[in-house]
Amino acid sequence: MIEKLQKSFFEKSSADAALLISEPQRKYLSGFNSSDGYLLITKSAAYYLLDFRYAEAGRKAAHGKYEVLPLSSARKDLTDLVKREGIKSIALEYAGISLKTAMDLRESFKEIGTDTILDETLETEVKKLRMIKTPAEVEKIAKAQSITDKAFSEILNFIKPGKTEREIAAFLEYEMRVFGADGPSFETIVVSGENGSQCHGVPTDRKVREGDFLTMDFGALYEGYHADMTRTVGIGSLSDRQVSAYELVYNAQQAAIAMIREGVSCFDVDKAARDMIEGVYPGRFGHGLGHCVGVEIHEDPRFSPICHETLQENMVITVEPGVYLEGDFGLRIEDLVVVEKGGCRNLTESKKELILL
Amino acid sequence: MIEKLQKSFFEKSSADAALLISEPQRKYLSGFNSSDGYLLITKSAAYYLLDFRYAEAGRKAAHGKYEVLPLSSARKDLTDLVKREGIKSIALEYAGISLKTAMDLRESFKEIGTDTILDETLETEVKKLRMIKTPAEVEKIAKAQSITDKAFSEILNFIKPGKTEREIAAFLEYEMRVFGADGPSFETIVVSGENGSQCHGVPTDRKVREGDFLTMDFGALYEGYHADMTRTVGIGSLSDRQVSAYELVYNAQQAAIAMIREGVSCFDVDKAARDMIEGVYPGRFGHGLGHCVGVEIHEDPRFSPICHETLQENMVITVEPGVYLEGDFGLRIEDLVVVEKGGCRNLTESKKELILL
Repeated sequence: MIEKLQKSFFEKSSADAALLISEPQRKYLSGFNSSDGYLLITKSAAYYLLDFRYAEAGRKAAHGKYEVLPLSSARKDLTDLVKREGIKSIALEYAGISLKTAMDLRESFKEIGTDTILDETLETEVKKLRMIKTPAEVEKIAKAQSITDKAFSEILNFIKPGKTEREIAAFLEYEMRVFGADGPSFETIVVSGENGSQCHGVPTDRKVREGDFLTMDFGALYEGYHADMTRTVGIGSLSDRQVSAYELVYNAQQAAIAMIREGVSCFDVDKAARDMIEGVYPGRFGHGLGHCVGVEIHEDPRFSPICHETLQENMVITVEPGVYLEGDFGLRIEDLVVVEKGGCRNLTESKKELILL
Repeated sequence: MIEKLQKSFFEKSSADAALLISEPQRKYLSGFNSSDGYLLITKSAAYYLLDFRYAEAGRKAAHGKYEVLPLSSARKDLTDLVKREGIKSIALEYAGISLKTAMDLRESFKEIGTDTILDETLETEVKKLRMIKTPAEVEKIAKAQSITDKAFSEILNFIKPGKTEREIAAFLEYEMRVFGADGPSFETIVVSGENGSQCHGVPTDRKVREGDFLTMDFGALYEGYHADMTRTVGIGSLSDRQVSAYELVYNAQQAAIAMIREGVSCFDVDKAARDMIEGVYPGRFGHGLGHCVGVEIHEDPRFSPICHETLQENMVITVEPGVYLEGDFGLRIEDLVVVEKGGCRNLTESKKELILL
């Protein structure tokens, strides 16, 4: 990815170097994940400043893509490197770094006569690269999703009346780890009964019981890449109203998935599902239909009423319609798909027809 | 906390209002946790702008400390409020917000004739408050640590030769959840054998075996507050060299803990442990001795060769010496203590003498 950025960025910018600091950008470009570090990319070289904690692992992961340099005092190590490389202007991230970091670095670089470029160019170029996944990235996301599907299959044997949302979340995360996850890819959502109307609810000590919908939104993190899926299952028998709400959301999702292919507008895919749900439950589908995933759980573009991006091959995006009825119940169904030229490939293999436990 | 900030901040700053955006600052000052929101504090009032996902819960948690206002378009909602309140200058965070956020807000406020103050004053004042925990905060951290200790006690029955680092991490996180955690308070570290020299290593599929040190660094998140502990155990029998390295780290930690009380310099506590380890393994204890915890896992002050802060009553801080021998082994022991006038209270109750499994 470093080579791709070198090609695209230095064509757009007059900077001599780009400095990446935020975790997802460094992870994406270098392939190596660390909580701290500085990745300096020039037209012809890349240097990764890593402290004591990460230097050994960083060297092992480099494969000639970058050279690891020791990091002890960021200010001194960075200015020494910039001087040594004769860098006269350096571009920073914009949304990815703090105001303090930007001001401190600009001050340091000014002292050695180097200009700091503070605009969105660098981020825009990395973002363009990140939207389209390489085959290796798709493979990692597919593996993350496969781990997630396996955990779902295990949880079906674990759920029964009396189990708490918290226990179910804990067991899902445990199974994902056991199947190979490096951790959950976001805070696991497990909500049941009337809690189900909180689309971002935190698992509580509520026990699941007969007649509940139980919604689980979870995903595995695998080698820095994120999976994301949601299934809503029924406990015991459900009311006719619950069953028809499930069918509505299921059909809305199918309609959206059927539209996905290169060249279609994100807005139109969102609208396909949204119109169906709004027709029955106006105002009760209060979030976007989906988002891309990658080294972050929420990436662009989105399926949303305010996103007019066009789908391209090898975008990886969620499709997650839902209905939320406060004080009553809620449900959501979410798959993860890879956009192809003439359609899409669904990475989520778990059963989607209503499961009663 | 809002009242405390009103007193201290408006004494130091000419601003008419302070705007808090970052999650830990908002959580700390308001007591209410949400992934998004804007907390505007004037000399005599506080407003919390929250979107539809959080407004209901935010109102329930307010207890008269702040007024909840709806958030749909941040730019418009914020400028409307600033105009309505007649605010002529507004201070922002510095390290807590992105360069982009700062630039966008400054632009918006400029359009309505309001100055934006971009310096560290606001953060410095919040940070001073955050360093000293209230009794209620200490109680939450103690509860988080107690959950963590319980999980450690369970893991001792789970660990045996053949279990992987990954399985051990998964089980630790599962047990923390079951005992009441809202999640892990940071990425669980489980490293064994030669992986042990990576002090921030990610759990792998390596199976633990006879003669290994196994280091587990983990903690529970409880009501927004973080615990943190590390234990290194031995599998089967260890070499004399391993045992004496353990004793060295153990003694270094004891020496540091014995020094902790109000009025002592953080530098001196770090030095007490560091000198002992450097004497035997020069350059092999490559990180600071400790850090405070609270609504974030890493807070100031630190036990470090570059921190000259003085300990005060009710700081809550880790003590975590270690030794890391690349290609060979590593170990660390970490407790969490509350600084008192004449000493400290250790919140970590797990056994610290070498455990062989």
